[in-house]
Amino acid sequence: MNKVQVNTQSHTYEVYLDKALRFRVGDLLSQCLKEKPSSVFVITDSTVAPLYLQDVLSSLPDDLSVSSAIIPSGEQSKSFKEYENLLSQALKNGLDRKSVIIALGGGVVGDIAGFVAASYMRGIRFIQMPTTLLAHDSSVGGKVAINHELGKNMVGAFHQPEAVFYDTDVLFSLPQKEWRAGFAEVLKHGLILDKSFYEWLQKNVTDFLSIDNELVSSLLARSIAIKAEVVSQDEREQGIRAYLNLGHTLGHAIEAVSGYGKITHGEAVVIGIVFAMKLSERLYKIDLDIPAFKAWVESFGYETVIPKDLDHEKLLEAMKKDKKTEAGIIRMVLLKKLGEACVEKVETDVILSLLKES
Amino acid sequence: MNKVQVNTQSHTYEVYLDKALRFRVGDLLSQCLKEKPSSVFVITDSTVAPLYLQDVLSSLPDDLSVSSAIIPSGEQSKSFKEYENLLSQALKNGLDRKSVIIALGGGVVGDIAGFVAASYMRGIRFIQMPTTLLAHDSSVGGKVAINHELGKNMVGAFHQPEAVFYDTDVLFSLPQKEWRAGFAEVLKHGLILDKSFYEWLQKNVTDFLSIDNELVSSLLARSIAIKAEVVSQDEREQGIRAYLNLGHTLGHAIEAVSGYGKITHGEAVVIGIVFAMKLSERLYKIDLDIPAFKAWVESFGYETVIPKDLDHEKLLEAMKKDKKTEAGIIRMVLLKKLGEACVEKVETDVILSLLKES
Ligand SMILES: NC(=O)c1ccc[n+]([C@@H]2O[C@H](COP(=O)([O-])OP(=O)(O)OC[C@H]3O[C@@H](n4cnc5c(N)ncnc54)[C@H](O)[C@@H]3O)[C@@H](O)[C@H]2O)c1
Ligand SMILES: NC(=O)c1ccc[n+]([C@@H]2O[C@H](COP(=O)([O-])OP(=O)(O)OC[C@H]3O[C@@H](n4cnc5c(N)ncnc54)[C@H](O)[C@@H]3O)[C@@H](O)[C@H]2O)c1
Ligand SMILES: [Zn+2]
Ligand SMILES: [Zn+2]
Repeated sequence: MNKVQVNTQSHTYEVYLDKALRFRVGDLLSQCLKEKPSSVFVITDSTVAPLYLQDVLSSLPDDLSVSSAIIPSGEQSKSFKEYENLLSQALKNGLDRKSVIIALGGGVVGDIAGFVAASYMRGIRFIQMPTTLLAHDSSVGGKVAINHELGKNMVGAFHQPEAVFYDTDVLFSLPQKEWRAGFAEVLKHGLILDKSFYEWLQKNVTDFLSIDNELVSSLLARSIAIKAEVVSQDEREQGIRAYLNLGHTLGHAIEAVSGYGKITHGEAVVIGIVFAMKLSERLYKIDLDIPAFKAWVESFGYETVIPKDLDHEKLLEAMKKDKKTEAGIIRMVLLKKLGEACVEKVETDVILSLLKES
Repeated sequence: MNKVQVNTQSHTYEVYLDKALRFRVGDLLSQCLKEKPSSVFVITDSTVAPLYLQDVLSSLPDDLSVSSAIIPSGEQSKSFKEYENLLSQALKNGLDRKSVIIALGGGVVGDIAGFVAASYMRGIRFIQMPTTLLAHDSSVGGKVAINHELGKNMVGAFHQPEAVFYDTDVLFSLPQKEWRAGFAEVLKHGLILDKSFYEWLQKNVTDFLSIDNELVSSLLARSIAIKAEVVSQDEREQGIRAYLNLGHTLGHAIEAVSGYGKITHGEAVVIGIVFAMKLSERLYKIDLDIPAFKAWVESFGYETVIPKDLDHEKLLEAMKKDKKTEAGIIRMVLLKKLGEACVEKVETDVILSLLKES
């Protein structure tokens, strides 16, 4: 079993990584909860439920009061309606302050179930059980949220889980597109903080279909360790947590301008990373070997150029809405070299001209 | 100006108490905010808005972007609908992470505006401007929440304000009933932790109509200081914060069984306090001079006995739903003597027989 520790101001918790973890949830709970739960409420989605919910439920002790809820699979479930609905179910199921919520699913389930846990009776304990590759990112760090029609993740909290149980088996039922969605954050972690990890990835991960349990487990352990390190230094997003936004300023803009759902977040982020690398090469007069990066990611099916039909001015406007923007000036995460990130104010016309070239 | 400091783990803030504070909000903001707000969003209710909103808005600097929202006056506004509605307005008004919300009103406004602030973009700063006597209690301590149809304050957060601005002038437009609602918590604070304050109250407060600005200001300063002391020792309600529940186990039960709104919270709490005093006298073989207490509070129009039409078994059932109940055993806040509280497990039949006598 791989284990990664996450240290935050509020508390310290473990990420457990192993195959077949979903059959051992009962044991793991008693290992990592200081105080016994009065009841457990498992929240999952309609794709994950038929695959893995029963395994989790069966692994819980018979004398524990257990209930579950299933939300429709997909981003549109991170809504007020589902949020209120889950809280109603929590109340009807009699959850109290000593109850524990288990979020069994991808980032969508983790985010909404986490916000339910953060706000139910002003906060109860919860466990993340990520089932997508992307959720290795979302399940660590305590950011939980739902969407508003005027903006993604606009309503939420910082609420750390008690533990993360990551069963690597379940990743193998993910479609290729979801591997791409998640792998973007993995390689991002290497690029911003760990050159040797980045190089290890380039060498060892050449094809999602040939990844096995052991490889994915060590890949996740290293990627999560980087995220955990960033979070522990900056739980509330005041400083270096911004590095995690590499590729995201343009990435989010591409998602927004093309219409959410057209291109996955991870696919957009990879295009954003290429853009940030180009800008970094230009501003710092360095060589990041972009051709090698492009060739590598294209072999997994990622796009590396901005879709032709997206208007540059619109992209620029969307980039200005980034949370790092201050007084109208765009601030982007760039690379000083491979494995070393920084945040830089970038002039609008510099961005616009590079957008036109790309 | 009276000032009380509140120390919590997350941060330290001041309660400013003075007449005419609502005309100085701009200055006070720049005094107590480390970082300038990018914009201010004032949330108030339909009773308070015509009385005081304009005063607050006019006191803010011209170069600050300011918006406001008005919710219907009353407890039914602590709803999901109003919550979502306020978040939508916050987004439409362009609030960002550096914006500040001002909660101008009683406990209802403070609780919902506080939860909006706690969850908007995962938490932005807010200021409490209490306008009721009861809100001296609700505005300090960081507990914020909305109601669910299955329970009061079921969804919320712990989110401390940046400061509390308490204009004592505005209390004089409150009806007597609202004075009673709030004064219950004031005398409770004396009873649980400060005998000399309790005696000072009995001597100086004999009639709400003859209270003046100066008296109410020192009364609030002392009562808030006690609440602040409790909160600083126990921000997350693990221990002595439970003392604040004196009179509330039965009080909440009376509110629930008689139907919310029939009797104000404060009026129900006073009946609960008399009950807890009787139980304390009996269990600890002490004399708390209950006749003097009853005579004093009855002179303000409080009831001191349980309404005759309430069923004792139903009250008992409701008391069991108290959050301090563990494994079906009711735990009540009692008094060892005036000014000294404790939490005690009490047998169901002891409670039931005292309910029948009362
Ligand atoms: N909280 C954070 O710090 C953070 C960070 C990054 C992303 N996010 C959020 O995460 C969300 C995206 O996460 P996601 O990509 O995991 O989305 P997701 O939860 O929607 O999962 C993607 C799809 O895969 C399905 N699925 C999940 N597990 C599966 C499995 N084992 N086998 C087969 N199918 C499976 C889901 O039903 C869904 O259809 C977004 O809402 C984003 O805002 C949050
Ligand atoms: N967060 C906490 O720690 C905490 C503690 C105690 C109570 N509460 C909450 O506080 C709420 C009750 O607070 P409340 O009693 O202040 O109720 P409230 O806010 O509804 O105010 C009572 C009434 O007085 C009106 N009003 C307010 N200020 C006025 C003024 N200056 N002049 C004339 N009218 C005025 C209001 O419009 C309302 O009709 C409840 O929802 C309760 O749950 C919270
Ligand atoms: Zn991302
Ligand atoms: Zn109360």
